[in-house]
Amino acid sequence: MNDAPTAAKERVLTGDTPTGSLHLGHYVGSIENRLAMQEAYECYFFVANLHALTTRAKDKEGIRADTIHIVKDWVACGIDPKKATLFIHSEVPAIAELTWYFAMLLGYGRLMKNPTIKDEIRVKGLGEEYSFGFLMYPVGQIADVLAFRPSFVPVGEDQVPHIEMTREVARRFNQYYCDVAGSVDDKDHEEAGGVFPVPEAKIGRVARLTGIDGTQKMSKSLNNAIYLNDPPKVVKKKCNKIFTGRGSMDDPPVLKGNTVLEYLDAFVEDREKLAELRAAYEKSEIGDGHLKKEAGEAINAKLEPLQERRTKISDDDVIDILKDGTRRANSTAEETLARAKEAASFGFFKREISFK
Amino acid sequence: MNDAPTAAKERVLTGDTPTGSLHLGHYVGSIENRLAMQEAYECYFFVANLHALTTRAKDKEGIRADTIHIVKDWVACGIDPKKATLFIHSEVPAIAELTWYFAMLLGYGRLMKNPTIKDEIRVKGLGEEYSFGFLMYPVGQIADVLAFRPSFVPVGEDQVPHIEMTREVARRFNQYYCDVAGSVDDKDHEEAGGVFPVPEAKIGRVARLTGIDGTQKMSKSLNNAIYLNDPPKVVKKKCNKIFTGRGSMDDPPVLKGNTVLEYLDAFVEDREKLAELRAAYEKSEIGDGHLKKEAGEAINAKLEPLQERRTKISDDDVIDILKDGTRRANSTAEETLARAKEAASFGFFKREISFK
Repeated sequence: MNDAPTAAKERVLTGDTPTGSLHLGHYVGSIENRLAMQEAYECYFFVANLHALTTRAKDKEGIRADTIHIVKDWVACGIDPKKATLFIHSEVPAIAELTWYFAMLLGYGRLMKNPTIKDEIRVKGLGEEYSFGFLMYPVGQIADVLAFRPSFVPVGEDQVPHIEMTREVARRFNQYYCDVAGSVDDKDHEEAGGVFPVPEAKIGRVARLTGIDGTQKMSKSLNNAIYLNDPPKVVKKKCNKIFTGRGSMDDPPVLKGNTVLEYLDAFVEDREKLAELRAAYEKSEIGDGHLKKEAGEAINAKLEPLQERRTKISDDDVIDILKDGTRRANSTAEETLARAKEAASFGFFKREISFK
Repeated sequence: MNDAPTAAKERVLTGDTPTGSLHLGHYVGSIENRLAMQEAYECYFFVANLHALTTRAKDKEGIRADTIHIVKDWVACGIDPKKATLFIHSEVPAIAELTWYFAMLLGYGRLMKNPTIKDEIRVKGLGEEYSFGFLMYPVGQIADVLAFRPSFVPVGEDQVPHIEMTREVARRFNQYYCDVAGSVDDKDHEEAGGVFPVPEAKIGRVARLTGIDGTQKMSKSLNNAIYLNDPPKVVKKKCNKIFTGRGSMDDPPVLKGNTVLEYLDAFVEDREKLAELRAAYEKSEIGDGHLKKEAGEAINAKLEPLQERRTKISDDDVIDILKDGTRRANSTAEETLARAKEAASFGFFKREISFK
């Protein structure tokens, strides 16, 4: 029943809902992780364009533009479509089909008790005014993950309840349809004949970047972000506004919670220079303006090659990249679905999907 | 934007959840309708095997056996796979995918207010113990219907709220994604550029057959049914038990609510003979026993050719019929999905599905 995963790389899956341009917070928090992962694992990175419909079903042009945009950002940052499989959510039918099977294995009450769902309803102020699709989305996430039978899923702390549901559904499927005994350890489900692994949540220390306002996490909605495609002048201008914690120039330099120091730490590659700057700043030999200028330069040095690469990626290139990745993603997901259907006595005939 | 539906036959869709052998109540209530429809319309009849999971997710072998079984019953009754497209729900990915898009257009509160859902939860005694899939099922029904863009849907009274939701979703999709104005009449949505028709519920006078106990509708769970594949001896035996409303043989014959008269009316094809029997019974020239025997003979005369045909249909024949129908169903549903995705700016590349 098993593939031989021992020789192959471990499989990892993660996706982004297309919500607009990526900023430095994304770069530090997630892109850098993926750049490392694509070397070590068999990676599937996907644009969760269907999930974008949960909160802006009316904004069809916006979702499409953001879908193209985010892939450009990924590739400009160095995510390599030859190393990782980049695909688009809406073109993997097996995910939508698995959503059906998994929905049957998940109690409605159980889903509604998921604290992340409750939080989102509260935070987004949805009240009673959410679509059925909004509730379906965590079930869809289970299918996103299990369609690729990954060993683990890299997530932030807030996504752990989703992965817990995913693990429950994987166990239940294997127990109902593959005769895996209830006593079998999570790690042994595939060996015991289960179609699905019981994937682990790998909670990364998600590096967070403070916004230029110095108070909250960098975020589009807080208008405190430096975007990956901001031109050098805009970056400089934004850096000039960075909050340093100092009330007036006569105050002593602030060393903890000073956003300009945080940025220097994140983006100055020459660590000796960084130490010198920090020392001079502590002794008030240089002031905020000097550091802001250095931060702007370091950020622009980071962004310049990235923006350079980005200009060379056309919309058509993105479609080609996604088509190639979606083909590969479907090859894996179709195999999963066929095995799941066979196990659940829903296997009737074999099918093939081809893309043009 | 439009096909030219004027020249073609109107399209109709209806399906059955596989729940066991069909009985005479199904025959009178729905099969006879379909036999007429397949002559006049472009018919899609499907086995809703995914829906069967909502209430018996653990019974995989039972669902599979019932799936094969029901198609044999259909064909034995005279439903012609050359005239109507017979297909299997779980092998039309476009339905699962459309479920996603439609879920986004349907308020959660709206769905939960559907009286049919509330009734089902109550009647089936589900309490809080239902799966998320149970709630997803009406959204899936919307996709079942709209995937085939039918002019109308033949339904029983209890299904009208489902069709009302279907109509709402069709309107909303056309308005959000196809620029159909809110003022456009339901019947003109396609002409105005909408991907979906706003299909009408066609509430047939669903002929109901009383069970042999004479008290309730014929139903598997009430143990009062004569099955299409009951052998002649079993039919005779069951007919001998038919409730005629008479307390003792000394009472006068009961003419209203007498189940044996109902059966004679439904199954005696010679209408002159029927009138004679009825007249003789009214005058007490013949008794209950005589009528029960006549009913048994009429039913067996109906069932004999049907059972004869049924023995000639193998499981492999069913698979072949479903494969052929599912191919045709996918051809229509894939076209619908492609048009829907294009309209919603989710069209990225063309795909083709082939079955082996």
